[in-house]
Amino acid sequence: MKVEQDLHMSRGDGETSYAANSRLQEKAILKTRPLLHKAVEEAHASLSGLSRAPADGKMVVADLGCSSGPNTLLVVSEVLGAVANRSSCDHKSSLVADVQFFLNDLPGNDFNLVFQSLELFKKLAEKEFGKALPPYYIAGLPGSFYTRLFPDRSVHLFHSSYCLMWRSKVPDKLASGEVLNAGNMYIWETTPPSVVKLYQRQFQEDFSQFLALRHDELVSGGQMVLTFLGRKNRDVLRGEVSYMYGLLAQALQSLVQEGRVEEEKLDSFNLPFYSPSVDEVKAVIRQSGLFDISHIQLFESNWDPQDDSDDDDVATLDSVRSGVNVARCIRAVLEPLIARHFGRCIVDDLFDMYARNVAQHLEQVKTKYPVIVLSLKAIR
Amino acid sequence: MKVEQDLHMSRGDGETSYAANSRLQEKAILKTRPLLHKAVEEAHASLSGLSRAPADGKMVVADLGCSSGPNTLLVVSEVLGAVANRSSCDHKSSLVADVQFFLNDLPGNDFNLVFQSLELFKKLAEKEFGKALPPYYIAGLPGSFYTRLFPDRSVHLFHSSYCLMWRSKVPDKLASGEVLNAGNMYIWETTPPSVVKLYQRQFQEDFSQFLALRHDELVSGGQMVLTFLGRKNRDVLRGEVSYMYGLLAQALQSLVQEGRVEEEKLDSFNLPFYSPSVDEVKAVIRQSGLFDISHIQLFESNWDPQDDSDDDDVATLDSVRSGVNVARCIRAVLEPLIARHFGRCIVDDLFDMYARNVAQHLEQVKTKYPVIVLSLKAIR
Repeated sequence: MKVEQDLHMSRGDGETSYAANSRLQEKAILKTRPLLHKAVEEAHASLSGLSRAPADGKMVVADLGCSSGPNTLLVVSEVLGAVANRSSCDHKSSLVADVQFFLNDLPGNDFNLVFQSLELFKKLAEKEFGKALPPYYIAGLPGSFYTRLFPDRSVHLFHSSYCLMWRSKVPDKLASGEVLNAGNMYIWETTPPSVVKLYQRQFQEDFSQFLALRHDELVSGGQMVLTFLGRKNRDVLRGEVSYMYGLLAQALQSLVQEGRVEEEKLDSFNLPFYSPSVDEVKAVIRQSGLFDISHIQLFESNWDPQDDSDDDDVATLDSVRSGVNVARCIRAVLEPLIARHFGRCIVDDLFDMYARNVAQHLEQVKTKYPVIVLSLKAIR
Repeated sequence: MKVEQDLHMSRGDGETSYAANSRLQEKAILKTRPLLHKAVEEAHASLSGLSRAPADGKMVVADLGCSSGPNTLLVVSEVLGAVANRSSCDHKSSLVADVQFFLNDLPGNDFNLVFQSLELFKKLAEKEFGKALPPYYIAGLPGSFYTRLFPDRSVHLFHSSYCLMWRSKVPDKLASGEVLNAGNMYIWETTPPSVVKLYQRQFQEDFSQFLALRHDELVSGGQMVLTFLGRKNRDVLRGEVSYMYGLLAQALQSLVQEGRVEEEKLDSFNLPFYSPSVDEVKAVIRQSGLFDISHIQLFESNWDPQDDSDDDDVATLDSVRSGVNVARCIRAVLEPLIARHFGRCIVDDLFDMYARNVAQHLEQVKTKYPVIVLSLKAIR
């Protein structure tokens, strides 16, 4: 698996596309809105403050892992709204209003879809913000956020939502061909401790690399708002996201038993993924010495993206419906990786089985995704 | 016709794509290489000079109308080569080496194709330039270059090749529905003087708008290198590019006679295009008062992109072969517009007929495209 080539959300805007199945991620953006607005205000204030920013009069904002679909431009809209709001409240800052956006994702992302929706977005933004709408410019920036993306000190605000649980690669030893985590695609109940360590080390390496790269790219006073899937359960073998992949591995195992998937294929499929605990995240940030944590929090989001209820009562849930909803959401994220490894022909059946597995699980316990959100300020 | 939505080169990299049929445009980039290298040197020098550039330490380069295919990255490669060369010659300038590229085109351009070729490009560039390769970053920037694309004073060098003959729109009066230029798609022998004036006025408006926008976006000392189709013949009704479209209109007229295209459809098809003379270009630049002309020149390029000969002898030409080559080249540029207006089903036959018309024409006279290339420096 070559993450930079193969990892991307399902393209286009058809029924199984990411664009049509990204309500889970939308909810996270709306939930973390106050934090994003605060970061925009602080980045904006640093422009108009005494410390002279490298690029006077414009604020550079980058969304890392922008994907393609309504969420991509929702982030842009939130930032523009925050700037518009600040400009109208504070006359001093009206001089520094231009916003230059960079929408970043891996090269396989459907940037064409995003670009073709910009004209409509422009009309909606003009209608929503009227005269308060600051001049803005939107560029697409292909590349891994585990590499340099910008010149030194040229960005004021980084935002990233539902991306930093993806690793730069499958840990080398796991990808080497030796079967170390048979029957699984991620950490799960039968995963040996040595494999857990490989995943954890990959997270530590990737995340500290990410912090160092972004620190170089941020201006003085630069901000980051990061949201990604985490882990609440202390037991790393029973993380909430592990369940999600465990049930998908179960569906693949059924296909192995039916002779439709080779066992070796399943054994060699490992996700470039790790959802850390809040403590693991804090430890890497502290060790880097590059950022102050302004805010860190873990919130929970129902597995079923259509379920907005707060209760934990499984009795009120239509588990079959929810199973289908969860399967659609996960398919929009994983289909390109699955199709590339196992072939396109198993995809429909796999996600039908997965929907049933999820439904069965949800009858017993209403599972939620733990989502970590944090706000960081670069130390200079 | 909505130029911003409908005008784009043929997508993908298949047989009839622009990516596979852009040798004509490649030849222009190679021909104007010395001028581009000189402009890069001057833009680079302005970074390391006394005048402090807004964004220290990086050079921002924008290619306007980048299209998709090998030419897109050829321009990037040429600029990187020029910077690499300068850095190795001049130790003083080694401090200011980062290059941030913006590849601009209309939103319908196949940016996905460009982005997916970046990994291979990176490998080739590392091989070609070795240690002299400056750090570089490539973004895609969708939007019309007849609108603002960048914040004030944030670009050091604009490049544009084979694009500025496209207008921002079909002149209003021509697009209004009244038949003013029956049987034609552009200025041709039967075009009334009033229609010629409409095209000329659209050129003057667009080009002066273009100059004003870019002047705002350029830093002090900023440069532009522009290459586009022009006109050599004094008689605007018999411009060299007019022939090219005249022969295509002829093929459409044949389809009208066959009952496969409605006459009204042809009469309402007008290209958002104007290829000016050198004098017309100079006049708009002088009137703007915004740029000094460092260099302006008209060179000629054979209609057949595969024909690299310098002679004008029609006897040595395989006119049938050349007709096919010209038709392929024009199809890669015009197919999206033609298919949208006339329907996809006539496209194959239309360009077969066009190839024959071109072949007949080339038997009589070896026609060439006049290409204007100019280098401009912003006046502050």
